[in-house]
Amino acid sequence: MTTQQLIDQIKIKKSFLCIGLDVDLNKIPDFLLATEDPIFEFNKAIIDATHDLCVSYKPNTAFYEAYGIKGWQSLEKTINYINKNYPEIFTIADAKRGDIGNTSSMYARAFFNDLNFDSVTVAPYMGKDSVEPFLAFENKHTIMLALTSNEGAFDFQTKSIDGKELYKVVLATSKTWKNSQNLMYVVGATKAEYFTEIRKIVPDSFLLVPGVGAQGGSLSEVCQYGMNENVGLLINSSRGIIYASNGSDFAEKAREEALKLQQEMEVIMSLKSKV
Amino acid sequence: MTTQQLIDQIKIKKSFLCIGLDVDLNKIPDFLLATEDPIFEFNKAIIDATHDLCVSYKPNTAFYEAYGIKGWQSLEKTINYINKNYPEIFTIADAKRGDIGNTSSMYARAFFNDLNFDSVTVAPYMGKDSVEPFLAFENKHTIMLALTSNEGAFDFQTKSIDGKELYKVVLATSKTWKNSQNLMYVVGATKAEYFTEIRKIVPDSFLLVPGVGAQGGSLSEVCQYGMNENVGLLINSSRGIIYASNGSDFAEKAREEALKLQQEMEVIMSLKSKV
Repeated sequence: MTTQQLIDQIKIKKSFLCIGLDVDLNKIPDFLLATEDPIFEFNKAIIDATHDLCVSYKPNTAFYEAYGIKGWQSLEKTINYINKNYPEIFTIADAKRGDIGNTSSMYARAFFNDLNFDSVTVAPYMGKDSVEPFLAFENKHTIMLALTSNEGAFDFQTKSIDGKELYKVVLATSKTWKNSQNLMYVVGATKAEYFTEIRKIVPDSFLLVPGVGAQGGSLSEVCQYGMNENVGLLINSSRGIIYASNGSDFAEKAREEALKLQQEMEVIMSLKSKV
Repeated sequence: MTTQQLIDQIKIKKSFLCIGLDVDLNKIPDFLLATEDPIFEFNKAIIDATHDLCVSYKPNTAFYEAYGIKGWQSLEKTINYINKNYPEIFTIADAKRGDIGNTSSMYARAFFNDLNFDSVTVAPYMGKDSVEPFLAFENKHTIMLALTSNEGAFDFQTKSIDGKELYKVVLATSKTWKNSQNLMYVVGATKAEYFTEIRKIVPDSFLLVPGVGAQGGSLSEVCQYGMNENVGLLINSSRGIIYASNGSDFAEKAREEALKLQQEMEVIMSLKSKV
């Protein structure tokens, strides 16, 4: 998917919502556990109930790997289901990968070619040659960790290098890499006050924003400081939507929660367009 | 496996060699491609031919994920084969994972419990709460990236924070985390001159050292600056050993290459014990 196609979808759906498919067998409705592939059945129901309200789905690979081969099969079925039925959806493999060059190429091939995700999240610690293999794929997107939503973000990411915080050095440096137009960045909603500074460095890039809801971030604050002319944000919500109920109405309740966020986003987009 | 058991194995085998099982179907002998599981057959032959010369095997997960479910099956069969036949081997899942707390817990469960690896490599960028879930497992080891063997290591890892390079801040900070006795660190052999400084911060920790051989690092230099009383090093070689031949003699040639390194290590260990 091209960036322009993503922007078009955001305008059509009046939504920049990404739903995190972080499926934990301990949290899904009991009756699904009797099915052959509970994770996939859960995802399918969530996707069917919410696909018109969001522009993106983001399975976190940890939740699939935790179930071994069966989990990997569920992931494959999920991405195939989305690609077949809702090809307008921007898919994110939240994998946070990164390794030396030839190894990163293997990861890129796994997520972009074999699984056919539109994007994958990567970690920046190993630098340029660990990320560039991902950037080489046309119309695929590499979403690099910049400033994450967890407490540990303050351990290293906000430490100062020659007067400039590490996450800013990461952002600025990555712009010099080959095919950097294929980069997006992870910036946690829990740190909304940082968005102004971040937009000075990457005014045009899409930012994937976890941490709204369960982790305490505010949607309106993130939009106030982080939105650009093309919206430029993908706001992720996982637990708040997919675990809204663990009864037989789980998909319906997930839709209600997604709708609340979509409606909030629609208002924000209409206000922004009037400025 | 406990750290003491690893140290004992190093002394028994007179080796601190780790063999990287980074299996690429384009590089293994053609005749294996006709078997049902070429990756596993390749690994099995390499393991059978080298297990007495090394103390550790390290499959890099990227090379397995690149083959989807089939690859994941090959990984599972490989780790099960090692654990069943050579339980004295220290196994490393080279996965370079790291995520927010509850997600890191899922990864830790996947590698430590389900696959039953002795250790897993993790990335430090997301800080304390992304690594501590791995450290919580008793007699399991978390090998954190400190200073990697690739060029990109100079992009961020060696940048200075208040006069102290990031990788040193990472090393020092991690020592304050809960169950930090379960930490080991990745330090590339291509940067041998850094080992003296690193040993000032983590004198007792095991260091996993990639980059000897194909990537240009020198074994004797690494040992000169990096060894401690318990050796404290796991020297990884992947391509130099497993792809020594792509004919029917591949396992035999792999053994020859492993033997060269083991013999070099035996000499170094005996010289060191005489100092």
